[in-house]
Amino acid sequence: MSKVYDYAEVAKHSTAESCWVVLYGAVYDVTKFIPSHPGGSKVILQLAGQDATEEYDPIHPPGILEENLRPEDKLGTINPDTLPSTTSPESPALSSAPSASSGPPSLSSLLNLTEIEIAATSLISKKAWAYYYSASDDLRSKTLNNTAYTSILLRPRIFIDCTRCDLSTTLLSHPVSLPIYVSPAAMARLAHPDGEAGIARACAKFGAAQLISQNASMTPEDIVAGAEPGQVFGWQLYVQNERTKSEAMLARIAKLPAVKFIVLTLDAPVPGKREDDERAKNISIPQPTSAAVQAGEDTKATPGAPGPGAGIGAALFWGTAADLTWRTTLPWLTRHTRLPIVLKGVQTHEDAYLASQQSQVRGIILSNHGGRALDTAPPAVHTLLEIRKYCPEVFERIEVWVDGGIKRGTDVVKALCLGAKGVGIGRAALFGLGAGGQEGVERTLELLKAETETCMKLLGVERVDQLGPQFINTRTVERDIYDGPANLERPTLWENTRSKL
Amino acid sequence: MSKVYDYAEVAKHSTAESCWVVLYGAVYDVTKFIPSHPGGSKVILQLAGQDATEEYDPIHPPGILEENLRPEDKLGTINPDTLPSTTSPESPALSSAPSASSGPPSLSSLLNLTEIEIAATSLISKKAWAYYYSASDDLRSKTLNNTAYTSILLRPRIFIDCTRCDLSTTLLSHPVSLPIYVSPAAMARLAHPDGEAGIARACAKFGAAQLISQNASMTPEDIVAGAEPGQVFGWQLYVQNERTKSEAMLARIAKLPAVKFIVLTLDAPVPGKREDDERAKNISIPQPTSAAVQAGEDTKATPGAPGPGAGIGAALFWGTAADLTWRTTLPWLTRHTRLPIVLKGVQTHEDAYLASQQSQVRGIILSNHGGRALDTAPPAVHTLLEIRKYCPEVFERIEVWVDGGIKRGTDVVKALCLGAKGVGIGRAALFGLGAGGQEGVERTLELLKAETETCMKLLGVERVDQLGPQFINTRTVERDIYDGPANLERPTLWENTRSKL
Amino acid sequence: MSKVYDYAEVAKHSTAESCWVVLYGAVYDVTKFIPSHPGGSKVILQLAGQDATEEYDPIHPPGILEENLRPEDKLGTINPDTLPSTTSPESPALSSAPSASSGPPSLSSLLNLTEIEIAATSLISKKAWAYYYSASDDLRSKTLNNTAYTSILLRPRIFIDCTRCDLSTTLLSHPVSLPIYVSPAAMARLAHPDGEAGIARACAKFGAAQLISQNASMTPEDIVAGAEPGQVFGWQLYVQNERTKSEAMLARIAKLPAVKFIVLTLDAPVPGKREDDERAKNISIPQPTSAAVQAGEDTKATPGAPGPGAGIGAALFWGTAADLTWRTTLPWLTRHTRLPIVLKGVQTHEDAYLASQQSQVRGIILSNHGGRALDTAPPAVHTLLEIRKYCPEVFERIEVWVDGGIKRGTDVVKALCLGAKGVGIGRAALFGLGAGGQEGVERTLELLKAETETCMKLLGVERVDQLGPQFINTRTVERDIYDGPANLERPTLWENTRSKL
Amino acid sequence: MSKVYDYAEVAKHSTAESCWVVLYGAVYDVTKFIPSHPGGSKVILQLAGQDATEEYDPIHPPGILEENLRPEDKLGTINPDTLPSTTSPESPALSSAPSASSGPPSLSSLLNLTEIEIAATSLISKKAWAYYYSASDDLRSKTLNNTAYTSILLRPRIFIDCTRCDLSTTLLSHPVSLPIYVSPAAMARLAHPDGEAGIARACAKFGAAQLISQNASMTPEDIVAGAEPGQVFGWQLYVQNERTKSEAMLARIAKLPAVKFIVLTLDAPVPGKREDDERAKNISIPQPTSAAVQAGEDTKATPGAPGPGAGIGAALFWGTAADLTWRTTLPWLTRHTRLPIVLKGVQTHEDAYLASQQSQVRGIILSNHGGRALDTAPPAVHTLLEIRKYCPEVFERIEVWVDGGIKRGTDVVKALCLGAKGVGIGRAALFGLGAGGQEGVERTLELLKAETETCMKLLGVERVDQLGPQFINTRTVERDIYDGPANLERPTLWENTRSKL
Repeated sequence: MSKVYDYAEVAKHSTAESCWVVLYGAVYDVTKFIPSHPGGSKVILQLAGQDATEEYDPIHPPGILEENLRPEDKLGTINPDTLPSTTSPESPALSSAPSASSGPPSLSSLLNLTEIEIAATSLISKKAWAYYYSASDDLRSKTLNNTAYTSILLRPRIFIDCTRCDLSTTLLSHPVSLPIYVSPAAMARLAHPDGEAGIARACAKFGAAQLISQNASMTPEDIVAGAEPGQVFGWQLYVQNERTKSEAMLARIAKLPAVKFIVLTLDAPVPGKREDDERAKNISIPQPTSAAVQAGEDTKATPGAPGPGAGIGAALFWGTAADLTWRTTLPWLTRHTRLPIVLKGVQTHEDAYLASQQSQVRGIILSNHGGRALDTAPPAVHTLLEIRKYCPEVFERIEVWVDGGIKRGTDVVKALCLGAKGVGIGRAALFGLGAGGQEGVERTLELLKAETETCMKLLGVERVDQLGPQFINTRTVERDIYDGPANLERPTLWENTRSKL
Repeated sequence: MSKVYDYAEVAKHSTAESCWVVLYGAVYDVTKFIPSHPGGSKVILQLAGQDATEEYDPIHPPGILEENLRPEDKLGTINPDTLPSTTSPESPALSSAPSASSGPPSLSSLLNLTEIEIAATSLISKKAWAYYYSASDDLRSKTLNNTAYTSILLRPRIFIDCTRCDLSTTLLSHPVSLPIYVSPAAMARLAHPDGEAGIARACAKFGAAQLISQNASMTPEDIVAGAEPGQVFGWQLYVQNERTKSEAMLARIAKLPAVKFIVLTLDAPVPGKREDDERAKNISIPQPTSAAVQAGEDTKATPGAPGPGAGIGAALFWGTAADLTWRTTLPWLTRHTRLPIVLKGVQTHEDAYLASQQSQVRGIILSNHGGRALDTAPPAVHTLLEIRKYCPEVFERIEVWVDGGIKRGTDVVKALCLGAKGVGIGRAALFGLGAGGQEGVERTLELLKAETETCMKLLGVERVDQLGPQFINTRTVERDIYDGPANLERPTLWENTRSKL
Repeated sequence: MSKVYDYAEVAKHSTAESCWVVLYGAVYDVTKFIPSHPGGSKVILQLAGQDATEEYDPIHPPGILEENLRPEDKLGTINPDTLPSTTSPESPALSSAPSASSGPPSLSSLLNLTEIEIAATSLISKKAWAYYYSASDDLRSKTLNNTAYTSILLRPRIFIDCTRCDLSTTLLSHPVSLPIYVSPAAMARLAHPDGEAGIARACAKFGAAQLISQNASMTPEDIVAGAEPGQVFGWQLYVQNERTKSEAMLARIAKLPAVKFIVLTLDAPVPGKREDDERAKNISIPQPTSAAVQAGEDTKATPGAPGPGAGIGAALFWGTAADLTWRTTLPWLTRHTRLPIVLKGVQTHEDAYLASQQSQVRGIILSNHGGRALDTAPPAVHTLLEIRKYCPEVFERIEVWVDGGIKRGTDVVKALCLGAKGVGIGRAALFGLGAGGQEGVERTLELLKAETETCMKLLGVERVDQLGPQFINTRTVERDIYDGPANLERPTLWENTRSKL
Repeated sequence: MSKVYDYAEVAKHSTAESCWVVLYGAVYDVTKFIPSHPGGSKVILQLAGQDATEEYDPIHPPGILEENLRPEDKLGTINPDTLPSTTSPESPALSSAPSASSGPPSLSSLLNLTEIEIAATSLISKKAWAYYYSASDDLRSKTLNNTAYTSILLRPRIFIDCTRCDLSTTLLSHPVSLPIYVSPAAMARLAHPDGEAGIARACAKFGAAQLISQNASMTPEDIVAGAEPGQVFGWQLYVQNERTKSEAMLARIAKLPAVKFIVLTLDAPVPGKREDDERAKNISIPQPTSAAVQAGEDTKATPGAPGPGAGIGAALFWGTAADLTWRTTLPWLTRHTRLPIVLKGVQTHEDAYLASQQSQVRGIILSNHGGRALDTAPPAVHTLLEIRKYCPEVFERIEVWVDGGIKRGTDVVKALCLGAKGVGIGRAALFGLGAGGQEGVERTLELLKAETETCMKLLGVERVDQLGPQFINTRTVERDIYDGPANLERPTLWENTRSKL
């Protein structure tokens, strides 16, 4: 029988020399673990000698604790009567939130994704909001992601029977009911206890695919546990500096038949600078000091190690490899998975072209990481137009998906008209979760699906494969896309990169 | 002699099983009618067991009641002494309306259409305002409708005798005194008891044509009853799923010689998403539940059936056919009317070209339904410029009218310079009505006419047929219009549509 | 000896049947004059039986009274002791004006033309402000007049000796010290008692030319009375419906050697719609009723007759001819003046070209009447660029001046770089007058001159004749100018007008 | 032993006839110096008979006093007991500054250059803020300097090893650790006592070059005193009307081996109009009256003499030569220095080309003087694009540096991609100094360096020499650059200037 500790006893161990914490009623000695904590030592020490459950829970998937601590680190259990009374829950992001008496707005009263975001902002914690809302620098790419869509005009055709409208399509040959999928987004439980599994259940209702983030706050096994037959998942890989960790993870994913493909993230080899997130830094989660022990062979090799002021975003990058290349990484990945590979984060037609030449690659996602990586990086619409202009054969060879900036069904349709096969929503799903858990995600998908259908009917289009550039007017965007060196030719495309393939 | 009921007796019949309502002092049993109510069952049940006159009156033309109920459904009359005292009238859209003591502004003090809209907004009910003001999604097309005009520059010529200015023209060979007509707009009595007949009397004073909405709150017979000799009306047709209803209506219209042509609406085969309208949904008018019995053979065939949160706009669509095609609908229509046909809602040059090839078609109206159908659909100015660029012969074959975004006489002149033969105002007429009934519409027309004359004189132009592109500079708009596939050729125009003619 | 009246006696004559007014201490019977008052009968009747001096004085030049009344209409003098105490002076345009104790800001503390306008706005009456500030419709042309300059970039050259800077130039061969002149602007005494003569004295100090408005509140003789040797004036002609009046005026001007040329106004054959001015209509000056007797043969021939709600601007137009043509007006004018003729109000390259073909014409002024005539008419910068593109020979044949939108010395320099020989300021001079009388105009000219010199020095340019297009970058404006019919050729220029020369 | 004066005695000498001042505890008779004071006589007389130390100190480098006064002008010392108590220190620029109790924000909490500027604004005096913040006229060039960068998009490449990032480069062959240098900016001690020497120490920490302003508030000797081995300085020369003064200064600089090159300022031969600075004019520093005795042979030859209302900026110009030319100045300069010459203030490709032809010139700085000289002058990005388009060989012949508008690391990277070898920050360094002295400058450089590294890594670029136009999309800027006379040819470039080389 395990020993029972009083809280006062635990509280004595609050230093780097002897660091105890309470988690889920158990008492752990984490002293030895401090230097290798992915989130850095500082955040642990902030909670040393305390009950860290509230801070720990929403951002760690189950099982992580056991993976990282030795059995002997578990000292016993806490005497619950000795715990201090819980502090008041963190205030929501908006202090002007509806008063408790009025309660949150009903989901059905939220008429569009913006209203869902507003509702979620008033319900979730400020640190969750900061993590979801933030983008790099001055949020120009985040803004442009959306305005690129809204400045495209639609071209409705008339006198066409539009009684029927079918949004079903396929993603890498897997049938889905919607061309809309949920992008990989970290730490859904920050928004709502339903977490990524709640998103999964909502996607099941709408036949939508879901990409699971490597930084999910639930295990992939838990997320796909209740999958419907035919439900489609992808798994997002951030390659770790310790490749063996990634290899182990790939082996684990291989056992989940619901996961149909691997999404290799490339648009954020180092973290962007998200100041909103950094400002919310007095958040009790991973904030390693700069003195954190690094795993790599030299300090330059650990670009992900966030400084003391970094936010959640930077902390999550800790340990992520920055040395991926066309030449080395794809072959390695192919050795460790049989699943089709999708490259996420393509932002130029050159890289789209290069990707289309790789036999292992089945699709690409045009993404600037929701504007969270490099500010003033181009929106996916630019990259779609670049590909159409310079190397349209890419669309024949691989599937092209996009994410970033989707707020309306008309945005979805415009992306599809430009050649996208799938359209991802990231923040929108998380804000849906924040607004109402699984039901909030369902409301998000319901609205977006209905808007997409209305748009297609008013265009006079019945199936998504009938959409094309004749239904949109992209003049205002087209004149802004990269027009390259004066005499760009096809071979240049291939050579126009530093990487040695 | 009919039976007299106490209100308490009526109040007992407030369910779907037995549903009575009071209308104009009479008591009706509408239980059997519930499933077939165009506006859905829910709205009726909300008023079950009550006096529904106040809600019913402004949105139903006279006679509709008798058409839809059997004689035996009229049970008797209500004892007026038993009626509850009336509730306070609904507050106007703007709570910051002028206090009762100050009274509404005098019409002559309103100097432009924007001021008339402001005045009307403070006078009409919020639900009327929401229905008139609303447009789809983010109101981008509604906004663009106007900014497309204001960004065009005029080119005044000097040293030209401008003592005379004649705005008279013809619409489908019928003389009118103004190139400005009133677009079909539903439910004018929501704004003012003068209703569509008030608009008609105002149009008579200015020699302006008027298009009568199928969803008018007065019968076409009543609207044209006081027409002046030569006064020009058109009648707007929304084809019904039950074609026989439309055929009966066409037969009825054929008996009204003042109606000179049929306007077939095509720009809204399914309702757009008007959130302002939806937000004002606690309006006691048609709001069918999703469980409403549908007339069609399968649920997909009733796209117009609005969900529980839909506003007036969506409700009015109920029963409207979404399966119109070039191939089937025009021949059918030709069989049921001898009047010239005008197609409303053309938004691409391709469809303008197609329309110009149809022998039955005498004119088209370039319209995005006031921005109320598909958001980010192009403004009429774009379509005018497209036609000028790709298929100018359309202007030779048929008349091209436009609506949407007209706020100033300069806007009217610019549309005429680009080839429009008639220029429609929709909301402007309704807001005029709201600001002062018939006199308000007259003020609207007076201002617009005076502004149009001033503009023409300052351009140095005497007659509308002398206007042309040399009087405008459209550079800022022209660079934004659709420029199509690179090597667009004429045959493509014809083929560039899914419809099989 | 003239009879002396008590005010009570005068007050009895306050109707159209017997209408007396007091002006400058004298009592007049104006009953017979009412129908022919240029400003309409209504405004007179508003002051019937009262002392009208305060309202009359600032807007009528001396001598007008005697010209229009018969000797017997002067009945006698008023007993000043019987006059009611004067009403409080009208409040300034800005109620947030500095309190009387603090006093107006010193002129030297005003650092630019915008600050002078702000100061003047707080000092002058609201009706004066409304008249000066107003422009037609939505003020788009007024706004564009300025933004067209600010969006042009300058190209400073380095390593050039800029110790000297000489702003002197010539206007129609008359030497002036500045390329900046004061545009004709009506009713300067509304702003300050110094009036147009104060402007003249300020211009004398700076060697600047001044154009005298036909609607000046002082006689041309008074304005030029104190002219310095070599001081340059032009006189602005609005041709009257009664040509003999204009002929008489031209004969009168011929006797003033300081007036070197005639400026024939063409950009406002009918008044624009200036709503700010109309809103300030409860101003006790010309506001003819629509029943005002018209001089012309038919009502359509008197387009200038303003309606009851019209402001000062519209009233001033009363009697102005709208039937001027290239064919008839220039020959007529040449018969009645030997002075060089400048045409004001050219807004297209076609008219610039036509003007350059007329032997009588020595110059043109590119002007949209300060945005007060036709809203969305092009700014002078557009017309300059049009001429440069389509018919640059115009600059060789005649002088091209511009006005509208000048706020900075850089604006002046940009106009000169584009080929303007003179640059007019209208409102800026009036606001200078309002801010401090003659000294305020001097401050305006001092600031603009200093800014112009600084700009030229920093460009590395010593004399105005060295300025040219190589010193500016007009890309952002150039892409917006009229580019005409696709295959515009030179002959088209000539023909491209309805006027029959 | 020097005589000791009572303050009352000093106070008697407060006129132009006998003018004493106290400086650093000593009493001086400056009567004879008044006429030759570079800042004009007025400012001295404002402080006549008083202790001027507080006003004098932050804007005069040590030693200047001794250079300009004769030994006999020092009369003795002041009896400190007789001095009046000091006035309260001047309030900071923002009255809404954090209260004293809360204290200034910690530097580490400032996340970007904008936040540093905000912090500095609340800490420094209003006159310092006005001097630093101000730019000419309407601040359009200052604004455009920044927006030109932000409207350029980046093109991140993927699958590139970005574990390493090296910002080191060379400036005129001198190794530096950053491509970012500190621009010459006057009077740093207005911001903080650390002054220019504090900037130098911060630059040493980051291996950044520093250009020393001729108007520094510390002597060049003091600034470079603590230089690290290899630390790179440039010295900025404003050529004086009295060339011998400039020659003496060059000789003095020649003795400082840390100064590696001379930066000849050409973008402000006469002062721009900085109204914010003028408004803060009740600042007790150089404000010569217009009656100030001029050194030149005629009054036109002293364009730098500021009027009574001029601010710090204008005063500093006093005595600066406006007669520099390619023909005369470069040869003169070459005779008086052996250091490489950099020309600062190139704003057109023509001048860049001309500079590249001069054998003495090793580099140019594209600069519009921070928007402080000529408003609407082009931003450096325009000039970079012009050079790339019209005479790219300039980049081969000389080094091209830029300054103006840098707020983010992405801005730095964009300038480097366009061909800049060095990127200068002016205000940013001064605001850093204001926010925290030397540490504030370090924070500024730390942030900018980190942002620059992040940007390069996310682009997939390891060294600055690998940056190029393929990494940016300049479409939105490129269409706005000067496109010159239609048939511009290379020889034209050379001739297209008034200067006679």
